[in-house]
Amino acid sequence: MSDLSYPKSKINKVNRLGDRGVYDCKTVHEIITGSQVVHVSFNPGSLEDYPVILPMIGKLGSFENPSADLSEPLDLYLHGYVSSRIMNVARQSAKDEPQKPMKVCVCATKVDGLVLSLTPNSHSMNYRSAVVFGTVELVTELEEKLYAMRLITNGVLPGRYENTRVPPDGAEMQSTQILRVTIDHASAKIRTGEPGDYEKDLKREELLDKTWTGIIPLYQAFGEPQPSSYNRVKEVPEYINKYVKETGDVEKEYAETAITKQSAGKA
Amino acid sequence: MSDLSYPKSKINKVNRLGDRGVYDCKTVHEIITGSQVVHVSFNPGSLEDYPVILPMIGKLGSFENPSADLSEPLDLYLHGYVSSRIMNVARQSAKDEPQKPMKVCVCATKVDGLVLSLTPNSHSMNYRSAVVFGTVELVTELEEKLYAMRLITNGVLPGRYENTRVPPDGAEMQSTQILRVTIDHASAKIRTGEPGDYEKDLKREELLDKTWTGIIPLYQAFGEPQPSSYNRVKEVPEYINKYVKETGDVEKEYAETAITKQSAGKA
Repeated sequence: MSDLSYPKSKINKVNRLGDRGVYDCKTVHEIITGSQVVHVSFNPGSLEDYPVILPMIGKLGSFENPSADLSEPLDLYLHGYVSSRIMNVARQSAKDEPQKPMKVCVCATKVDGLVLSLTPNSHSMNYRSAVVFGTVELVTELEEKLYAMRLITNGVLPGRYENTRVPPDGAEMQSTQILRVTIDHASAKIRTGEPGDYEKDLKREELLDKTWTGIIPLYQAFGEPQPSSYNRVKEVPEYINKYVKETGDVEKEYAETAITKQSAGKA
Repeated sequence: MSDLSYPKSKINKVNRLGDRGVYDCKTVHEIITGSQVVHVSFNPGSLEDYPVILPMIGKLGSFENPSADLSEPLDLYLHGYVSSRIMNVARQSAKDEPQKPMKVCVCATKVDGLVLSLTPNSHSMNYRSAVVFGTVELVTELEEKLYAMRLITNGVLPGRYENTRVPPDGAEMQSTQILRVTIDHASAKIRTGEPGDYEKDLKREELLDKTWTGIIPLYQAFGEPQPSSYNRVKEVPEYINKYVKETGDVEKEYAETAITKQSAGKA
């Protein structure tokens, strides 16, 4: 199942620098799963034509096939306060126009480095971004709602759900709305490698002699866990230390080796 | 001029957890300026009602008042390849419907920490996010275009523009489209502080005895600058080292002290 890809369409096709476009499920899903926050865009329908962007937690899973891995078809789960704007819009459009459900665009981006070249127009960044176009449904079944709450909590910090007071009680269930986003189209765009300068600049000896070119790696780092004022557990639990250490190492290594990965085209 | 704020409206008002809402120009602008990448959302008008999100570089400045600081009114400048989709949409709407210019929503987000509490529903993140609603204009004047190119390059790495081959030549000017976004509405949302648990959970002795609560700080870190294969400048220039060191220190310190800053409400 590792070769599944999102089909290219006019909606998800990477037009600009198309050689950076990636469509396989695993790559797209990994970028989303590895991002603490995704950006969700929707049209509230009433705000003078502005779309709205919200930073949210977005995690991937399949309620029908819970053992599915990242290379398989997955849904994107979002959660929020039951009467927040995005939830009101989702509820309203499900009610008013069930044949025309709410559409969203969801984007996750990691910046892996600044790419410094000889001239401003050749500058770039190393990055990984995934964009998903999807259709929203309200999750109403108790079992799927609990599935999503666990998915989201453990998607932020593996093992956390089981190590807290669960399940959510009646008031908590009622105040939380879960959205299931069916992924209609998706793609990723990735840049790695060193700077790509124009031939015209690479011939300018004086420019080469005075201009430092290269990469400044950027990555998300994790600090030491800090206890709350009311924490009573003296040692930071192993599942937390493991996550902090392993994820931090992976992020740092990716950024620091991005320059050695084959670049996908100029700039 | 340090007290200027964006007026609250139905468009930018932070409804959910309103005590986290911040409207002063300086705070909103600092979050955008301090983000390597912003997310830009627009409606291409032809894609089955999906809005589109693009990760882009977005920098703030005032061409009319170039010495303006972050507490003053500023425009947001975006750039891209002249025939990329967002630029085509901007050009088309300026041509077809000059009285109804393109609208965008732009969001910048920094995640400063994972906030771990006693129960999944009280979990949160420490973060800073800014959301801008704006109206797009194509920049056509040569002088403003050069202003924006310098603003964008130096906004990513201060001093870089002057230390490269400038100005951009004719082909580079032609292939780059600059957009000026007039900020119509804007707000920021910030969470700091330690976890906020419900009274009902803080009374559960057994839960307190077994559940670690606290913060995992998260911040953007900078690796050592890595030279390109064709770099000839042996020492990394001082303006680059200074930026890497200073920005890295600021990010780390903010995240590691966020727990001590007053929290803006529960969860």
